[in-house]
Amino acid sequence: MGKAAFPFPPGSTIGILGGGQLGRMLALAAARLGFDVAILSPRDNAPDARVSAHRIFTDYQDPEGLERLAALSDVVTFEFENVPALALETLIALGCAVAPGPKALAFTQDRVEEKRFLQDVGVPTVPFEPIDRADEIGPALAAVGHPALLKTRREGYDGKGQAWVRDPGSAHDAFAVIGAKPAILEGKADFVRELSIIAARGRDGATACYPVGQNHHKDGILRTTLAPAADWGDVQPRAEAIARKILDGLDYVGVLGVELFELADGRLLVNEVAPRVHNTGHWTMDGCACDQFEQHIRAIAGWPLGPTEPHARVEMENLIGADTDRWLTIAAEPGARLHLYGKGEARPGRKMGHVNRIRPLA
Amino acid sequence: MGKAAFPFPPGSTIGILGGGQLGRMLALAAARLGFDVAILSPRDNAPDARVSAHRIFTDYQDPEGLERLAALSDVVTFEFENVPALALETLIALGCAVAPGPKALAFTQDRVEEKRFLQDVGVPTVPFEPIDRADEIGPALAAVGHPALLKTRREGYDGKGQAWVRDPGSAHDAFAVIGAKPAILEGKADFVRELSIIAARGRDGATACYPVGQNHHKDGILRTTLAPAADWGDVQPRAEAIARKILDGLDYVGVLGVELFELADGRLLVNEVAPRVHNTGHWTMDGCACDQFEQHIRAIAGWPLGPTEPHARVEMENLIGADTDRWLTIAAEPGARLHLYGKGEARPGRKMGHVNRIRPLA
Repeated sequence: MGKAAFPFPPGSTIGILGGGQLGRMLALAAARLGFDVAILSPRDNAPDARVSAHRIFTDYQDPEGLERLAALSDVVTFEFENVPALALETLIALGCAVAPGPKALAFTQDRVEEKRFLQDVGVPTVPFEPIDRADEIGPALAAVGHPALLKTRREGYDGKGQAWVRDPGSAHDAFAVIGAKPAILEGKADFVRELSIIAARGRDGATACYPVGQNHHKDGILRTTLAPAADWGDVQPRAEAIARKILDGLDYVGVLGVELFELADGRLLVNEVAPRVHNTGHWTMDGCACDQFEQHIRAIAGWPLGPTEPHARVEMENLIGADTDRWLTIAAEPGARLHLYGKGEARPGRKMGHVNRIRPLA
Repeated sequence: MGKAAFPFPPGSTIGILGGGQLGRMLALAAARLGFDVAILSPRDNAPDARVSAHRIFTDYQDPEGLERLAALSDVVTFEFENVPALALETLIALGCAVAPGPKALAFTQDRVEEKRFLQDVGVPTVPFEPIDRADEIGPALAAVGHPALLKTRREGYDGKGQAWVRDPGSAHDAFAVIGAKPAILEGKADFVRELSIIAARGRDGATACYPVGQNHHKDGILRTTLAPAADWGDVQPRAEAIARKILDGLDYVGVLGVELFELADGRLLVNEVAPRVHNTGHWTMDGCACDQFEQHIRAIAGWPLGPTEPHARVEMENLIGADTDRWLTIAAEPGARLHLYGKGEARPGRKMGHVNRIRPLA
């Protein structure tokens, strides 16, 4: 650990608090650049561990596991924002470089803190109110308008830990649905499109943004991204300005995903920020010379950021659960690029892979 | 082994008799398609083992190692044509699918057999004579013309095991230089360009060819490939016809590289055939949607072959020995895609990586 100075030369080791497909795609990108990868994963036989040089199967908070990871790694990153902040702090205390830093992790782990930070850096969001008790929902609903979305402050992803509140009478039920935990009530954005931008910041403060993508969710899970989005030229400068405020405000190092609502009047609101490579950036694997995974590795290793221009328009489709049974049909589609994550059981709702369908840019 | 029927579904295991960068790039391609990889390598800590799920460090001929590989793998391939034929035969005897088959391996392991096969399938080569003793070189030189290139019949790559014979008087010296082994004397082709074609054949007999590349060697080692080659449209159909004769003649399954000499009158002669992914095909990683590594995995797993159309013109430069010290400069070039192999010591002549520089197609 701390064996090399930035930029870390090829042959250095990238540590990943991982266990899933994002760690796997990061590991593959790191390998292409000549790095070794060390995975710490709570699950045996994790998709990312199977393509990595070093494997530590233990809990994210196991001090011995973290010590081994720090000893192996020149820099450690994470694939998942719900990694315990304590894990990063332990690694830093062991003298290990960590990127993105604990500040970025902490702010996205608490939805209220995230929204407050966004307001502080001048980035518009939907109206919101913190909720600690069910009886706070009624007055909050009056403030943010209804219907409104009640989400746990911490954890929850892919639509988990969320409930719609249509009127004050359903407040107690909604609070029960999310487990009666500290929460945030968010006003409903009357959006015309869901967009996102994948952005990166290097150790030198340089930033790079990919073209905005246009997303379609179903049951809270991303189904498709079209990128670059239709008429992206118009929205791109404003989305980039938002991304740069967030990156600079967090003194961020690495790749970050920003989900945006586009309103009928053209305004952009930030929905969520993910301090990591992002599902809505998977299209870059076949639409850009340097994809979001290589970009993240470059950033955290102190390398110059790579180019972000698209060379194709890509329709990314997530393969969820039994969708993956279509692998052979997709493999035979000439314009389709199949990416599978090496997961065993195709449980409903489980992200098994994705397919990028390549179209001409113009 | 033999766990699944063709086409092998994602989650199956690809075995590789490996140890180097070709195995590594095959393993990364297999992982993208959701396969696990098992590497058998004579060297500990091999570049390909470090990105693979299963690792067996032993000699290619170790019966126990081969048994373990067969038990893990649904199909086994190799990254290197000098793998002992006995290894493949052992795997087949254990009930393991192997591709390409022993026939393809055997014919490229003996340069005289290779040339005879090429003649049999109607593919032109330089004139050649088998050589068993130094005193056969004089008469052979009269037959093939001089200067001529004396090569060991077996083994030797990147210019090793080769010596030029300029006149009958230097025959004994040349034979000593190559170790006084059974050899072949090849007439010098008066070529204007060195070209190559990377071609694939699936289990169903379907074939697919990438655009012809134009190669530059120095000291017997490939330095650069430009692909598609200048004026490739003219030469492509004839190169493809040659590749298909070889593929069909061998009942081949997988990717194969054919090195060609283009003569002043436009004729193509086959110089060498490599029954594997090939250094002159590395450009496909950034010039085609489906690169030669994914193509090989598709073929041996019984999947449909992928598309081979180029979306860019690529200048591939091998990074040999200390060339790799330029990694940071190359990483900062916007149009350059860096691929490093995770090898430790940058010894002179050692292939450490390559860079693909992307240019517009037209």
